Order: sequence, then structure tokens, then C-alpha cells
Amino acid sequence: MSNKTIPYKIYLDEHEMPKQWYNMRADMKNKPAPLLNPGTLKPMTVEELSGVFCKELAKQELDDTTAYIDIPDEILKFYKMYRPSPLVRAYCLEEKLKTPAKIYYKFEGNNTSGSHKLNSAIAQAYYAKQQGLKGVTTETGAGQWGTALSMACSYFDLDCKVYMVKVSYEQKPFRREVMRTYGASVTPSPSETTEVGKRILAEHPGTTGSLGCAISEAVEAAVGTEGYRYVLGSVLNQVLLHQSVIGLETKAALDKYDITPDLIIGCAGGGSNLGGLISPFMGEKLRGEKDYHFIAVEPASCPSFTRGKFAYDFCDTGKVCPLAKMYTLGSGFIPSANHAGGLRYHGMSTVLSQLYDDGLMEARAVEQTAVFEAAEQFARIEGILPAPESSHAIRVAIDEAVKCRETGEEKTIVFGLTGTGYFDMVAYENFHNGNMTDYIPTDEDLKPGFESLPKMD
Amino acid sequence: MSNKTIPYKIYLDEHEMPKQWYNMRADMKNKPAPLLNPGTLKPMTVEELSGVFCKELAKQELDDTTAYIDIPDEILKFYKMYRPSPLVRAYCLEEKLKTPAKIYYKFEGNNTSGSHKLNSAIAQAYYAKQQGLKGVTTETGAGQWGTALSMACSYFDLDCKVYMVKVSYEQKPFRREVMRTYGASVTPSPSETTEVGKRILAEHPGTTGSLGCAISEAVEAAVGTEGYRYVLGSVLNQVLLHQSVIGLETKAALDKYDITPDLIIGCAGGGSNLGGLISPFMGEKLRGEKDYHFIAVEPASCPSFTRGKFAYDFCDTGKVCPLAKMYTLGSGFIPSANHAGGLRYHGMSTVLSQLYDDGLMEARAVEQTAVFEAAEQFARIEGILPAPESSHAIRVAIDEAVKCRETGEEKTIVFGLTGTGYFDMVAYENFHNGNMTDYIPTDEDLKPGFESLPKMD
Repeated sequence: MSNKTIPYKIYLDEHEMPKQWYNMRADMKNKPAPLLNPGTLKPMTVEELSGVFCKELAKQELDDTTAYIDIPDEILKFYKMYRPSPLVRAYCLEEKLKTPAKIYYKFEGNNTSGSHKLNSAIAQAYYAKQQGLKGVTTETGAGQWGTALSMACSYFDLDCKVYMVKVSYEQKPFRREVMRTYGASVTPSPSETTEVGKRILAEHPGTTGSLGCAISEAVEAAVGTEGYRYVLGSVLNQVLLHQSVIGLETKAALDKYDITPDLIIGCAGGGSNLGGLISPFMGEKLRGEKDYHFIAVEPASCPSFTRGKFAYDFCDTGKVCPLAKMYTLGSGFIPSANHAGGLRYHGMSTVLSQLYDDGLMEARAVEQTAVFEAAEQFARIEGILPAPESSHAIRVAIDEAVKCRETGEEKTIVFGLTGTGYFDMVAYENFHNGNMTDYIPTDEDLKPGFESLPKMD
Repeated sequence: MSNKTIPYKIYLDEHEMPKQWYNMRADMKNKPAPLLNPGTLKPMTVEELSGVFCKELAKQELDDTTAYIDIPDEILKFYKMYRPSPLVRAYCLEEKLKTPAKIYYKFEGNNTSGSHKLNSAIAQAYYAKQQGLKGVTTETGAGQWGTALSMACSYFDLDCKVYMVKVSYEQKPFRREVMRTYGASVTPSPSETTEVGKRILAEHPGTTGSLGCAISEAVEAAVGTEGYRYVLGSVLNQVLLHQSVIGLETKAALDKYDITPDLIIGCAGGGSNLGGLISPFMGEKLRGEKDYHFIAVEPASCPSFTRGKFAYDFCDTGKVCPLAKMYTLGSGFIPSANHAGGLRYHGMSTVLSQLYDDGLMEARAVEQTAVFEAAEQFARIEGILPAPESSHAIRVAIDEAVKCRETGEEKTIVFGLTGTGYFDMVAYENFHNGNMTDYIPTDEDLKPGFESLPKMD
């Protein structure tokens, strides 16, 4: 197989697509720390979690021993509508960079949600439907997750209530309209539809909202309504489990051509894409079968891995969710207003946090003008207009390929291209017009966030 | 092969991709009428056309005898970056419609231009580069063509000047930003940069522009600048030639599974997609090898096939381009302001016009609220948010599938899904908010257009 010409795009045949998700936790010696009940500080049980999440998802959230979990047929059927996603050999980029490195990217943007988020949205909607629920609630910031969930709910004929951070709701009317096309109701947050929304509006009249507030509203709307549950598009173990389909497809495609990557790069906000992309490779590393170099790339303006603390913290600003042990800037951390796009969550997946703490992966922070330079360069050479989030991975992939040019190393680099930037053209416009700046928080800037960490004793 | 399970998405392998374009004109008994020099009313020569178009493209424009033309390697290489496009079996739509019909769509939206336009843009940019030109000029209305050309020019490092209808420039700032990302200069038209622009601005101060005016500016900018030529994304014979890649891929994918379509449906504005999609099938019909039923779908508000005249007309409002014999509403025809999206050209490809006049295809006009109903239904069931233009074909595909439910016929329907609607959310918003209306011009409304037809004697 190894002397086959490698096509520009490697597509798996339908029968080669993964039929099981892979659960990295099963192979971790140091398991991720358990979620704690914020009242008792005891590990959350499936029963406790089932008040907020669907029962099956609560089970998946806590299952750290089952390595492979069957993907239900209904989800496989939906996956076939937009998957497999292509693994693309970036021949043109390699040529332009004059690098001996071989660059591949796994492109998850070829579906209407414009990102990988759909992989978990359809799973979460499926289990909600199985449980006989009427609908689900969620929050969305940049809008990819809300769009993905709307599509998934539309497919299963579930009601979908999205709380969209007010500033995004106003700045991104097109994202909102896409969700409406799929039948979702979209409420700007904070709103008068929840108690927590009313309270926040009373305390901060005219606030443009935050992800933390939107989460609190979505959780209240779910818990307070018969037949509803809350769903979340990142950070959670269940989300990484569903997103493992990205890595499993990537590995199957590489295996077809006997390719072993040296370097695997992904952007990291809450960790949904990175955790999914690296899963099967990290599994081999954890089992001592192979070694890979993993790089998590995060914004310098929201540096949870590179400058955060590894500690128990609240998952939401409203402090209603369970506590998770993770690399965090503190739930009180608010990224600078000049930060464009997503990757603005204060914490990080507990799984990835543990792996990072165990020295199994590297993390790197990059500044946004350098990210948009890479984005534009990539668009012009490879054709695809990338999302700002994905462009963090592009930045480091290009940097590493340039290093290879200098050292002469023929490394094989794989990175995750999580999505497209069609709804992010305001950020591109600022970049083109020279109105984009960089921001690296000082230690002083990070202080209030760290002070918001819960006292655990 | 015929008892193979048909996957949701049929992808050709790289080596199965077409290596030649197919030129329908070679198999037409009644050739399309020649382009005429507007001054002499004599057929245009390659030399005359070469003042406006690249030499090689001028040749392709006039070549009605060569059936297959090799696709240059550089173009094949670029095609591999975003092609083959999938031929998708719409299993979920079939199920929802409870139809015995089998529905397939050829999806051309998975590239950053968001449409099939890139197939010809890259070819036109290639020949411009081959000729040693510095750059090209063009006009764009809705923006797909301008985006596609920007991408193509960026790839070949050619300068790209786009004249964008002013109202679109202002209403679609994101389209403009995408073009800027690829390094194009985008000028709102009419502008002070050309004589014709200045004249129009003097005559109609405050005008929001028109496609006709933008064409005139782009032609002037090309003809008046050393090292530049003008390029166009539809209507022309060369464009249909390049777009034949859509139909050739479709046919190869169907042939792999021994599938013969009964009905092939495409939206039609200037004819670029429809002409490309039907090419190889129409070839078989013209050669008497097989029979197919073709349906061109156009907006009821711009009904060139269904209510136009088959006559020589100007291709542009400024009347500087050659005369073409086509189904036309007259170059003076302006579609109603309430018409959303593209498909607003007054005329139609001369090739398709001849085929239609010879009774080889059907044409149908549909109203836009019915089109958006189909668009939303399709998005919810098949996941993809379609462009308004593409949704004309969806409307008729659904109508025909529903007819099959009633008659019990197991027809195989193929339609062209030309692109995505991410930059058309204003139209979707109007639809959601009940602010979209239908408009069918009266015979009286069509009169001024017909009166603008040239007197030929």
C-alpha cells in the first residue's frame, strides 16, 4: 500500500467509517478527576447528572473504563449524510512553504454547521429523542454549536431552545437565521425568560451578555421544564467521546496509505476538536504502542493550558454546574473584547487537562494577528477560508513546516481544520483594514479569574 | 455492479475524474447561432474576440466541432483540491416525501466560493496566466462568481479586479471581504474609475447599480489596460464547456452503479450550471443513444425561457458586447427588486436556447416563496442549507418526487445543487418573517425589455 500515490483528498468508503467511538479514558493510567457535586463536594453520580443531562449521556460522562462504545445505527445514518470528512494532503501549501514536511489536514467544515460540532450534536439529540424528551436547551457564543444542535434537533424532530450571547445575537444575525431555518428558537441572553436572566438584567442593565450567563439560562430552562434536558458542545467527556470519530477516521485514512504522523496539532478552546482528533493516536501512546507529538494551540488572550492553574473550578460563571478539575483561568475570567472568534472558554476538558499535566502533550499560545495571517495564507493557497478557531492550528502547522524547511526534517504533520469562517468575515475585515490588535493578559489581568476559583478544603 | 448498495455519497476516485471537458456543440445538428459583431452584424472571429477574452478562451468560444478538449494539468491539479464533488443519494428526503422516486443531487457547494462557479473561474484564470497577462476584470452581482474568480486568480498570482453591483456591495459586505481575503480589489459599481461609470453616475446620481452597468465597467477596465482581459462566469459557450465537468462526474458516478436517470433538473440563470450538468447526457440524446427528460428551472420573475423571445440580443445593458441569439427578455429588462438571489440575467446561453428551441428540454418557472419553502424543507431533511438559486431545482425535484408518489413511478431524479446559502441569510430572514412576496411580471411589464431588442435587418 505504501507506494500508492497519495491523493489530494483521502476519503474513506462508507464501509470503512468507524462504527464505534473510542473512549480515551479507558486507557489512561491517571484517570481524569471526577466531577464534584458543588454542594457536597462528592463525585457526581449518574442519577445526579441525569437531572441535567439525558441518562445515557450521563452514563457516558462518567464511564472511564469502556474503551469502545457502539455508535447507534441512527447516528451512523446521519454521519453518512456529511461524513466521512476528507483528510486532505496540503500539496500546494507544502510547495509554497518549500518544506520537506508532509502536511495533512482533517477538514470538518463541509456541513452546514460549518464545524465539527455536528458530530456530538447529533449524538446528544439522538439520546434525547431515545429518552422520549420533547426538547433540549443550550447556549451558543460564536454560533457553531447552536447551529449544529439546531440541525440535529430538526432531524429528530426535537424542540431546540438556544440562548445566544446577546452581543453575538446582534452582531451575527446570519448565524441566528441559520438556526431559525432549522426550526430552533433563538433567545438573546440575558433574557427575561429565566429567573437568572432577569436577575442579571436587573443587576447589569444594558449588559451584552456572556457565555457563562447563557449557560446558566439554558440550564435553568432545561431543569425547569418537563421533558427537557441541557446539552453542551465542548469540555465534557461525552463530547470528546463523540468527537473521537474525527481521529478514528483520520487514523483509518492514514493507515490505508501506511502513513504515520509525527506531529498532530489541534486548536483548543474547551477541547472538543483536539480531544476527538488525537483520541486513537493518544490511545496508542497511552498503551505504549507508538509515540506521537501532540500540540494544543490556544489563543494568547485566553491561555488556559499555558498560563492556567490545574485545579477544581466551576464550569459556568453562574456556578450552578458541577466542579471539574481542569486547567483553568477561573470562571470569573473574561477574555478581552478584542479577541475574535471562539476558544474563549475559561477552562479545558478534564481529560485533556490530565493528559497535559502528565506530560503527554504540548500546548502553545498564539496571538491573533499571526493567526489571521496564517488563515489568509492558507485560504489563498489551499482554497478553504478557515474559521478563526481552526486557524490557530494552521498557524502552528505552518510554523512547524517552516522549521522542517530549516532542519531538513521530513516530518508528517496532521492538523485539525475544524471549520469554515463564512460567518466570521467581520473579524477578517478588521484584519484586512489593520484594525486587529493582539492582547496578552498580564499576570495582573489574570488575577481576578484566579481569585474566583473555589476554595476546596 | 448493479446490486451494490448505493452509498449516501458517491465519490469518484481521483483517477476516475474527467480529464477532458465535453463540448455539446460538437454533437448538435442545429448549431447555436454565431455571436455577431454589433457593428458589422457579421460573425465574430477569434481575432475580434481576443481583444476582450484570452486567445485560448476565444477559440473555445467559437469551437463547435471538437467534442472533447483536454483539461490542462494545472487545472486538473486545482480541481483535485476541491473535486470530485459528491453525488448524494437523498435517502432522507425520499423517506420524508414517501416517494418511490430515487433522488440524487450533485453538490457543488463544498468549496469556498460556495458554488460551481469555480470550475470555470480556474480555467479562465489559467488561460489568462498562460497568455502572460497581468490580470483580469469581471463583474459580480450576488457574489459567487466574483468569489470564485478571486480564488482562482490568487492561486495563479493574477491581479483580479471585480466590479460589484453597488447595492450588493453594500448589502453583502461579507462576500466582499471573502474576495479581499483572496487579494481581489472590489469596486462598487457604478464607480468613478471608468468612463462609463462616470457617465452613468452623472446621468443617474445615487443609482445603486446593475449587472449590466458592472459588465460595461469591467469590459472597459479590461480593454483599456495593458495586460488585462475580461472574463464572465455564465452564458458563454466556454463556460458551459468548463462546467461540463459537473455532468461528466455525475455520469461517471451513476455509471459506477449502473444507474440511468430519467429526469435531470437544473436551475437556469445564464445556464452555466444547467449546461454543465446535462452535457454528457444531452450528448447521448443528441447522438440518439439514450433519452432523458431535462428540466430547466427559472424564477417566475425573470422567465427568459418560458416567456422570452428567441432572438439576437445584446449580452449587456451597455450594448458593448457581441450580439447573441438566445431566449431573452431584452437587455433592457430589469428583474423586480423583490427578487432574491441570482438567476436574474435577461438572456440565456445560446447553446441551451438552441436545445430548448429544438424541443430537447423542458423549462419551468417557479415563484420564490415556493422556492424558499423547498429550500427550508431540504435544509431540515438533508442538512445542507442551499443557495436560493439552487433551490429552484430543489423545488421542481420535490414536485416531481411527489408526483411519483401519486403515480407510483420509480423514477430516478438527478438535480444540481449548485451551492450553499450562507451569504443569503437576509433572504432567508425575509422568508422566515413573512416579508417575502411573489412577483410574476405582466405582459405589460415585459414590454420595455422586448422593445430594447435590437432591430436586425
